[in-house]
Amino acid sequence: MLGAFIALIVTFVPLGANALWPIPRSLQTGTTLLKLASSFDIKISVTNPPQDLVDAVSRTKGFIQNDKLQRLVVGRGANDSAALGSAPTLPGLTISLLNNNAPRAIATEAVQAIGTRSEGYSLTVPTDGTSAILTANSTLGLFRGLTTFEQLWYDSAGVTYSYQAPVKIVNDIPAFPYRGFMLDTARNFFPVADIKRTLDAMSWVKINTFHWHIVDSQSFPLDVPGFPEIASKGAYSSTEIYSPANIQDIVSYAAARGVDVMMEIDTPGHTAIIANSHPEHIACNQASPWTDFANEPPAGQLRLASAATTNFTASLISAIAQALPSKLFSTGGDELNTNCYAKDSQTQADLKSSGKTLEQALSTFTQATHKSLTDLGKTPVVWEEMVLEHTVTLPKDTVVMVWISSQHAASVASKNFRIVHAPSNYFYLDCGAGEWLGNDPTGNSWCDPFKTWQKSYTFDPFAGLSTAQRSLVLGGQQLLWAEQSSPENIDSIVWPRAASSAEIFWTGATLPDGTARNVGSALPRLHDIRYRMVRRGVRAIALQPHWCALRPGVCDLRA
Amino acid sequence: MLGAFIALIVTFVPLGANALWPIPRSLQTGTTLLKLASSFDIKISVTNPPQDLVDAVSRTKGFIQNDKLQRLVVGRGANDSAALGSAPTLPGLTISLLNNNAPRAIATEAVQAIGTRSEGYSLTVPTDGTSAILTANSTLGLFRGLTTFEQLWYDSAGVTYSYQAPVKIVNDIPAFPYRGFMLDTARNFFPVADIKRTLDAMSWVKINTFHWHIVDSQSFPLDVPGFPEIASKGAYSSTEIYSPANIQDIVSYAAARGVDVMMEIDTPGHTAIIANSHPEHIACNQASPWTDFANEPPAGQLRLASAATTNFTASLISAIAQALPSKLFSTGGDELNTNCYAKDSQTQADLKSSGKTLEQALSTFTQATHKSLTDLGKTPVVWEEMVLEHTVTLPKDTVVMVWISSQHAASVASKNFRIVHAPSNYFYLDCGAGEWLGNDPTGNSWCDPFKTWQKSYTFDPFAGLSTAQRSLVLGGQQLLWAEQSSPENIDSIVWPRAASSAEIFWTGATLPDGTARNVGSALPRLHDIRYRMVRRGVRAIALQPHWCALRPGVCDLRA
Repeated sequence: MLGAFIALIVTFVPLGANALWPIPRSLQTGTTLLKLASSFDIKISVTNPPQDLVDAVSRTKGFIQNDKLQRLVVGRGANDSAALGSAPTLPGLTISLLNNNAPRAIATEAVQAIGTRSEGYSLTVPTDGTSAILTANSTLGLFRGLTTFEQLWYDSAGVTYSYQAPVKIVNDIPAFPYRGFMLDTARNFFPVADIKRTLDAMSWVKINTFHWHIVDSQSFPLDVPGFPEIASKGAYSSTEIYSPANIQDIVSYAAARGVDVMMEIDTPGHTAIIANSHPEHIACNQASPWTDFANEPPAGQLRLASAATTNFTASLISAIAQALPSKLFSTGGDELNTNCYAKDSQTQADLKSSGKTLEQALSTFTQATHKSLTDLGKTPVVWEEMVLEHTVTLPKDTVVMVWISSQHAASVASKNFRIVHAPSNYFYLDCGAGEWLGNDPTGNSWCDPFKTWQKSYTFDPFAGLSTAQRSLVLGGQQLLWAEQSSPENIDSIVWPRAASSAEIFWTGATLPDGTARNVGSALPRLHDIRYRMVRRGVRAIALQPHWCALRPGVCDLRA
Repeated sequence: MLGAFIALIVTFVPLGANALWPIPRSLQTGTTLLKLASSFDIKISVTNPPQDLVDAVSRTKGFIQNDKLQRLVVGRGANDSAALGSAPTLPGLTISLLNNNAPRAIATEAVQAIGTRSEGYSLTVPTDGTSAILTANSTLGLFRGLTTFEQLWYDSAGVTYSYQAPVKIVNDIPAFPYRGFMLDTARNFFPVADIKRTLDAMSWVKINTFHWHIVDSQSFPLDVPGFPEIASKGAYSSTEIYSPANIQDIVSYAAARGVDVMMEIDTPGHTAIIANSHPEHIACNQASPWTDFANEPPAGQLRLASAATTNFTASLISAIAQALPSKLFSTGGDELNTNCYAKDSQTQADLKSSGKTLEQALSTFTQATHKSLTDLGKTPVVWEEMVLEHTVTLPKDTVVMVWISSQHAASVASKNFRIVHAPSNYFYLDCGAGEWLGNDPTGNSWCDPFKTWQKSYTFDPFAGLSTAQRSLVLGGQQLLWAEQSSPENIDSIVWPRAASSAEIFWTGATLPDGTARNVGSALPRLHDIRYRMVRRGVRAIALQPHWCALRPGVCDLRA
């Protein structure tokens, strides 16, 4: 059986490009060594460049100067040193826009409606002594190109150089408009600095959406203007609250790095902690045994049949959403526990007086929260249950996140909703770390096993979909639920694994040489971005012994 | 089936002691709040105290001052503030030895032969205004008592206090003499600072042995006096080498913290990298496919049938071991690949000329390496294969590490060897993190699933052993093999999980109240030491949502 399995594995043939993540959709590289001139500089050939573009260029220059990553080969590029003496030199990089429109800030471009952003770029890195040229239709595209350019450079004995010049990338545009990462900051809290560092790493692999699952039943670390009592009574402590200034800081930081912050206020479930400040709005708060009332402790859900609670929730969501530039906002909608409402006398009385079923009341509730978003010109995002398990009226352009199983994407597509892939069986970064519920000596995580980068990388965004349905796929993301995570392991549990989906949804199914994406050719490049991340202060973990990282293919299952 | 399973789980009843890891074998606590006097000090009532005891006391005072850990309860102890105003005060702690012998340094006590060390201590923390008293037979015992004392203190609004005074611990001595942690620094390199931080954390939970798997087939990061070429050609880089000074630094640092450094030079397998400097001593170096010649890449083993190689290996081990104070030294001996020797013409010629079988040659080789240790007064340690899979003559006092399966302990015991439990099915910290071999899209780690702290904690050191055989069990350890680990995740993959075995082998099977050790009562205490580790700069991960950590038992599978 093992023999039969091994026979199916194709021997790995390295691509020419041993770097670049995600790999551009078009890419031609050479084998010439090219060193940066000591006077190397990046010229912004843009009239009145926005400050965040100027800052991005500064960061790029900093990375090129400070990464000092040696090539991941035996000898670490020491053999290049002699040849570098006579190698051609790159005097600079010139970046410019392809149209004469007044340039908008990266931050402005990054938060445009999904599907309308211009993220493509073209890049040539010549070996004839002339400057490299990066062009795009937008500052956002220029930023994407800068993150590619940054990954071309290595260090050997103090010389910064590329070993794969000339490089030609023509119109590298993403295969999917949504490339995300989700972080849960409610089960355990993450300081602003951890989020910013995560946003940096996201931007390095061209992830463009930060899905911020900011609150949940365990804590409410968000100070909402007009609702200060929710965080003051629902956060873990006064120092574990995101203030309005923190939110703006994070949103600005993200947008300047091409990342749109899509916040989620999960409703009506996952809201128990609101009872600390508003017990009138929460059914079955901390009801026992929690297993009867919720998927995890503590139980507690918004009283969706109550007009007062509905108004409260819509006002709360409006107050949060109006401070955010993103066109997307998630109202959640997962894991509704009907027994909670069946046992809640107020909900039963509300249903009786309105003559509605629970499903009808849920639809009314959801329409109200969604109206608070559409009134602000925003598009609602929901978890899959809202379309697969309930009969809720949703705006046609609602975005649906598939999480329970990748196989549910087809069902969502059959209802003609747009899809973001977030399946637990491929993309949940928390799986496989053991049971976090107490007093369960032999338990493991509900979504065992650990989702390896390889497993994630083999995800097919179009599996089970008809050709006509493919346009419904906006993209996808990996996710970190934080029951067993905290600032102590955010880097190591996320990176480099979350780069898997970044390449799936930027590069698509096909490598630039026309072959299918595969874990064999991906690994050396994933090593490269991992070592680069470490150089930049993100604690991305080793994927193999260093010995193997220096010898692509040699540590393959069948080398 | 689920129902039947749940019915077996006993509802958790919290012990009085919500702190202390490992929990002392004898412990009486009260419910009185006791605050530290502003003039609190620790008096060393020892004539001519050794400097490392003085330093240990300074560290204890530092932890008490700087931990500033709030109680893990709802409100974080804010409710204690009012009562603390009139609470009794502890003026100091006096530490003294129970005999009048001239005190030896902790570092001296820590490296005595296994089973001969005096690690016990007694501690009383009164509420009558008098000082606490810590006594022991040795400075090592005093150090163990200090680490217990450190864990009693919390912060509320700037007041340092205990909530469980008075405390009385009478003769807390470890159930097992060997309580270890193993780190592999060969698959990926760990700088000295990471090792020291790990040693700190180990000492906080009374782990007393650092099993240092320092070299392997992938790299040889050890500069051996007389053999500088092995590291200079076999380390990953010139900066990834432990110099003799580094080794002495680490050994001294460990010993001053009650930790004996037991180094391992794994032989004759796991030695491929030696071929970089001594190709004459290595058979099947990097032979392909590696699967035919080794358990993992690269292949390469010492030519055990060669007299020259045997002499080289014995000299190498002697040169390493003589610089180490530990009485234990491991020569490894796992995963010998016989096909490698069958295909190695030199080995076949050597066997032919000597008239020995491979097994006989292995015995000769091993006796030579072990003689190099016994000549230095040291005891050899080997992996289980040396007694279970081979017919090697070993010194009677050889210590055998059981790793393949916990069920093999009985077989080792039946051969009357002393045992250190290191079973992969309970104690391997690397399991469950996915396949590290390349080009294996659906692979998982060979020892899936992840070994949860709960699984590790349920290990029974005496399982399968007769009463008479129990004395053969020296203790056990958790282990980090570093194929997928690096400085980026050492803290998060090790802590707090490795504290599981620390308590198993200190406390034994029974809690101080006479009940059996169990994961239900362990969790709140494990949270406590985890949060304390984080306060001290060790990035131990969250085990649950913070909400659950503040509510012992409420997030149990059946709360």
